[in-house]
Amino acid sequence: MDSLHPFDLSTTSNITTPTLLVDKERCLRNIRKMAAKAKAANNVTFRPHCKTHASLEIAQWLHEEGQVHCITVSSLTMAKYFAKSSTFRDITVAFPVNIREIHAINEILGMSSGDGDNDPLQLNLLVESPDVVAFLKQNVTTTTSSVGIYIKIDVGYGRTGIPARDFDRVDTVLQQLLLPLEADYPKIHFKGFLSHAGHSYDCRSREELLQIHNSSKELLLTLKEQCQQKYPDTQFDLSIGDTPTCSVIDPSDLEGIQEMRPGNFVFYDVEQAEIGSCTYDDIAVAVACPIVAKHSDRREIVLYGGGVHFSKDRWVDPDKPGRAVFGRVVQSVSGESLHWGSVIEGMYLRSCSQEHGIVVVPPEEDFDSYLIGGIVKVLPVHSCMTADVMSNKGFLTCDGESLSRMKN
Amino acid sequence: MDSLHPFDLSTTSNITTPTLLVDKERCLRNIRKMAAKAKAANNVTFRPHCKTHASLEIAQWLHEEGQVHCITVSSLTMAKYFAKSSTFRDITVAFPVNIREIHAINEILGMSSGDGDNDPLQLNLLVESPDVVAFLKQNVTTTTSSVGIYIKIDVGYGRTGIPARDFDRVDTVLQQLLLPLEADYPKIHFKGFLSHAGHSYDCRSREELLQIHNSSKELLLTLKEQCQQKYPDTQFDLSIGDTPTCSVIDPSDLEGIQEMRPGNFVFYDVEQAEIGSCTYDDIAVAVACPIVAKHSDRREIVLYGGGVHFSKDRWVDPDKPGRAVFGRVVQSVSGESLHWGSVIEGMYLRSCSQEHGIVVVPPEEDFDSYLIGGIVKVLPVHSCMTADVMSNKGFLTCDGESLSRMKN
Repeated sequence: MDSLHPFDLSTTSNITTPTLLVDKERCLRNIRKMAAKAKAANNVTFRPHCKTHASLEIAQWLHEEGQVHCITVSSLTMAKYFAKSSTFRDITVAFPVNIREIHAINEILGMSSGDGDNDPLQLNLLVESPDVVAFLKQNVTTTTSSVGIYIKIDVGYGRTGIPARDFDRVDTVLQQLLLPLEADYPKIHFKGFLSHAGHSYDCRSREELLQIHNSSKELLLTLKEQCQQKYPDTQFDLSIGDTPTCSVIDPSDLEGIQEMRPGNFVFYDVEQAEIGSCTYDDIAVAVACPIVAKHSDRREIVLYGGGVHFSKDRWVDPDKPGRAVFGRVVQSVSGESLHWGSVIEGMYLRSCSQEHGIVVVPPEEDFDSYLIGGIVKVLPVHSCMTADVMSNKGFLTCDGESLSRMKN
Repeated sequence: MDSLHPFDLSTTSNITTPTLLVDKERCLRNIRKMAAKAKAANNVTFRPHCKTHASLEIAQWLHEEGQVHCITVSSLTMAKYFAKSSTFRDITVAFPVNIREIHAINEILGMSSGDGDNDPLQLNLLVESPDVVAFLKQNVTTTTSSVGIYIKIDVGYGRTGIPARDFDRVDTVLQQLLLPLEADYPKIHFKGFLSHAGHSYDCRSREELLQIHNSSKELLLTLKEQCQQKYPDTQFDLSIGDTPTCSVIDPSDLEGIQEMRPGNFVFYDVEQAEIGSCTYDDIAVAVACPIVAKHSDRREIVLYGGGVHFSKDRWVDPDKPGRAVFGRVVQSVSGESLHWGSVIEGMYLRSCSQEHGIVVVPPEEDFDSYLIGGIVKVLPVHSCMTADVMSNKGFLTCDGESLSRMKN
């Protein structure tokens, strides 16, 4: 019979189940860097997307370190969650208006902030069809708050929005929006064009990211120029936002742009590091997972940590098309510390089922140093999705502070 | 300017956001069929895995229609959730023991059921190393409830468990388990071998599934025979469980097996239909998603329904390796009905971001019949993961009844 192996229960002893760790120092560094960029570009509003963390505490860090009070969210539920705070009373829902939720829209417009003040809310919505504009005109009922309307413009991603070169289609929305608006619908006002260059996620270098930014900006500026010729008295704000391009551009690249809405940068993740928008050292979240089994013959360890903790988002390196990565393992810091060190080359989550994660241990690593009951820290492939599936458990900072997250 | 298009807000008017619909009739049919199979096989315990739905109400359907009172779960949190009910007092946690959760194990063993009775709980745990057995002996503290131990056996999946042919390694665990057990640890007893033939998910036909079942069973029976030679007075129960093989076998294929633990069969999903374990007509869940945008040039519609509603699990047809499918669209039934009809060929979710889903509309479908505000019903690729990400919203039966789900 094998002699019994030691366990590893003494380190990070408060962790019993998969736990999303947030390195606050790294978060703050990421926030400061992005806020400084927006500030250095004259008059660019920094309106971070809060869907990545969906946490009031982390939004508060954005406020304190980045002077943020305008935010972006991805659903009305999330708008409602943040509108409870008196800090965030200017909220853009970066998702096409779902007319079935008109009741929720009106409810949010009527919400006073949690501290009893009755400061009106500025709620900005996205449209891409004249029909939805007509619907909003008929059905928005607020008398105190205000609705801003952005037209969603597709700058090449091909998901939502009117293609930037399709002036005629943009104009059908503008006609519905501008002509009878100001007089009859004083609470609804046109803001401008909003884009999300999501095709930046297909990039593999800083150079490619800069190309995407420049071509997207060019498309928006050209469209704006066309529109200003027809509507010379109208202001057309341009709002851009995706973490990859916002991470690599210089302040001067924002000339002509009025607003930036990156979101993921607060946490970053494996995908962002791989496409060139951050370094691995910038990644501010890791999932701490207990080791539950070991297979020395396969040089694999089994973690308590699966799809319900990481999501099933994967990273596939174009040079290794057959190999999906669900997370990358980082060096642990000994003792009770919740911090982590560098990525361990070749050590990654090769598969995720509902609760299990299988980690490949590379030849260079000492297999025997991984003990049952020990904790392995794993950088997620897509932190937005990981934070979402962990919403019920909340997050833990490396200093042991609990952070709450909105429940969907 | 385009004339305004009609909206579709009158049908299924209670649905405002993505909603997981459960067709109770299909669920009950799936339950009856599987229960009848276990019953027809003499003395096979039907211990369904409840991780797919994680809903006390649906577990109650299993009890009523399938006489189920023994269940399988995937975490201690889930064990705790079900142990609150006096119906389910015999629970197997089909996941390797996480020794960091010893406190939770003892807590569950001490739980009385919700109705005030103090019926002892039978909690069955999985081990695959002698160390963990030793740990449990030292640390399980119950005096009333009972802990059953299964050794996890790998029958070819390669995720967890001791390879079925590795008798020596199995024997190291048996020695730790059997020799000093009965006298000194009366509350811990050995149950037998448990396998999960998860490689059945790589099959593409009923024939391939039957092959996996037969080879897995053979491996278990051979191992049992070897063990009985060394330990003739010990009972070795064999527990198998994966929906694909359990769905296609006949009762006679269960000869020699004491227990079956399929889980996904209650709902089924696109993946199960594609690998041959069910028909599309058996799938008992669909996500109802509002249409928020239309792109006739691309023949695509944009749904409110993304990764936070479906998960990011995908189906890739081996014949179309470049095409990932995140869900398949079914025919809607008009009016207020929440039911659905057949799969629409060629109409599927081609991409999921956090909140958006992009649906391809095939040439045969009338694009104009899909209206903004309308509801599209989508069969999920992997219902276990979809149910998990929808846990905070719960489910809705097609009769409009709300079902709750455990929160992770």
